[in-house]
Amino acid sequence: MATIAVLGAGIMASALATPLADNGHQMRLVGTHLDRDIIDSIKSTGVHPNLGLKLPEGTTAHQLEEAAEAFEGVDLVMSGVNSFGVRWAGEQLASLLRPGMHVIALAKGMEADDEGNLTILPRVLANQIPEDLRSQLTFSAIAGPSIAGEVAVHRHTAVVFTGENAEVLEMWRGLFATEHYHVWTNTDFVGVEVCAATKNCYAFGAGFMSGILDAMGEAAGDRYVNFNYGAALFGQASIEMIQFMDLMGGKPTTPLGLPGIGDCFVTSMGGRNVKCGRLVGSGLSFSEARAQMPGVTLEGAAAIKVIGEALVKQTERGAVAPEKFPLLRHLYEVVGLDQAVNVPWDTFFGSNGSGE
Amino acid sequence: MATIAVLGAGIMASALATPLADNGHQMRLVGTHLDRDIIDSIKSTGVHPNLGLKLPEGTTAHQLEEAAEAFEGVDLVMSGVNSFGVRWAGEQLASLLRPGMHVIALAKGMEADDEGNLTILPRVLANQIPEDLRSQLTFSAIAGPSIAGEVAVHRHTAVVFTGENAEVLEMWRGLFATEHYHVWTNTDFVGVEVCAATKNCYAFGAGFMSGILDAMGEAAGDRYVNFNYGAALFGQASIEMIQFMDLMGGKPTTPLGLPGIGDCFVTSMGGRNVKCGRLVGSGLSFSEARAQMPGVTLEGAAAIKVIGEALVKQTERGAVAPEKFPLLRHLYEVVGLDQAVNVPWDTFFGSNGSGE
Repeated sequence: MATIAVLGAGIMASALATPLADNGHQMRLVGTHLDRDIIDSIKSTGVHPNLGLKLPEGTTAHQLEEAAEAFEGVDLVMSGVNSFGVRWAGEQLASLLRPGMHVIALAKGMEADDEGNLTILPRVLANQIPEDLRSQLTFSAIAGPSIAGEVAVHRHTAVVFTGENAEVLEMWRGLFATEHYHVWTNTDFVGVEVCAATKNCYAFGAGFMSGILDAMGEAAGDRYVNFNYGAALFGQASIEMIQFMDLMGGKPTTPLGLPGIGDCFVTSMGGRNVKCGRLVGSGLSFSEARAQMPGVTLEGAAAIKVIGEALVKQTERGAVAPEKFPLLRHLYEVVGLDQAVNVPWDTFFGSNGSGE
Repeated sequence: MATIAVLGAGIMASALATPLADNGHQMRLVGTHLDRDIIDSIKSTGVHPNLGLKLPEGTTAHQLEEAAEAFEGVDLVMSGVNSFGVRWAGEQLASLLRPGMHVIALAKGMEADDEGNLTILPRVLANQIPEDLRSQLTFSAIAGPSIAGEVAVHRHTAVVFTGENAEVLEMWRGLFATEHYHVWTNTDFVGVEVCAATKNCYAFGAGFMSGILDAMGEAAGDRYVNFNYGAALFGQASIEMIQFMDLMGGKPTTPLGLPGIGDCFVTSMGGRNVKCGRLVGSGLSFSEARAQMPGVTLEGAAAIKVIGEALVKQTERGAVAPEKFPLLRHLYEVVGLDQAVNVPWDTFFGSNGSGE
């Protein structure tokens, strides 16, 4: 039996208590300063309020000030915060981790420096930790199509654990894999994480197809949806994910299967990010749509700003061709520059419909 | 102004009257023996009953016995029949076509010979025409994500015209492309058509995710869908489409963008094929599900039988490795052999989640 200490009590981290518990392992869930009510709820009733479920036996909850205690005697650690909390989590972990520990991270996104160079979030997390300690740790991450609530209630889910060390990934796989939670391992750390970050961007665009119909109102009729439009954007996303592999040094085949196309599919099916895209598709500016969703976390929109701005900078200095990533660039115009949706179809799909 | 004669008055062929008319061209729609009522309706009211729309000005309708008349003075021809009508259409066209004519086809699927060798349908169509005439014709096809009704009402649609002759494809593109109907051309005829055929197979599987929830009834709860499952199948479909390129001689990049992934997305969003997959996912055998949909055309299920059986034969004679196409093979077990859905997860995604 293993014990995993988790920093951040969001729904994805908490949902992963299910496969862990199914394998007889235990999770110690440490809330951030934002998770105080969640931890209180789990402590008193066992129920994670956002997940709407009682967490499995063997899962304990701890407030942030109890973190050191929760991390005692544990050498397996999960960073369960979202993309906005990664730097903070890294700083916290710097004082909680000890040599020989293994870290696995959930947050999806990228950070950019002033020149537009992009870094995957597990590296950002690791970089918060002093080098002499960092070199005695391993960092891995979980990616692939995975709605948290489904994992928590044993729906079949197929994911990818990624990192540089195949043996460490196999160790993590052994802890989590069950008859419902199917795990593959992939050492293309950059490729898998870039897919995970960019799929959130493209899923924002998946909202446009419904928003356009909303704007048409009765003129849309009751029979004709807008799936041709959505399918075209999805197809362009598949092409651009492979362009990202070239740009970032991932393998060109990594977006196939689970990390890119599979995850983009599930993320496009719904959620806050798609909802905001839908509002924008209906004719609101991004700022107007954002104002209609106060307090809501929009990781996809944030990723569009970071990656879109980085692409502009990289294009200016000649590191990327201006004809690459036309959909992501348009998403940036919409989200980052508050422009109206106006899909530049002629710039999509290369010359042959498949990106060449 | 050009005139196009069409054999087969199904909804896709008829919907294409919209972009044609937008460009000032005319369509002569010739019904098959099954389209008699459709043609009568268009003749008397202009309305295509299955499309539920009045066809644009410049579209005329003709019963099959008026075909010779409708084909007079025309050198552009569309084969608008579905996959079940391709041989019949080829036989009809053998007496309607004249040297120098250009044919573009809509049907999606493949045929197999006794040894399991597969042939794309535009070739099957062409092969019905005597060789001396055939050599003086060109054959092209339309593929990519395209729900007919959406095309008919000017929803943005991005498609691929495919064939061996780039100049002929460009000619067709010029006739059809509008500000809403976006056309790319691709000379990987086999690759594009294999994508078009196999996406119908995989879309059948897309129904399973909902069917499984149907079977759970209240046990499924009201919050948790089954998108992780669907996304995993979609991801595996993307891997297998690329395996099909290797098997059939298409380009490995052809499934990206519109022909494979984009089209698989739109086809997975609904329709009769997905509905039948849903019934099977809920626990019915394929035969039972089929019996609940009398008279309904199921091109995806038919393609699964043809392609699945061909894969068995090719595997027996060593032409394809048994570990390739595990999802299509399972779809064949379900549809061709009436077995229960039991997704063989461990055979999916290669060793790294991306098919390698």
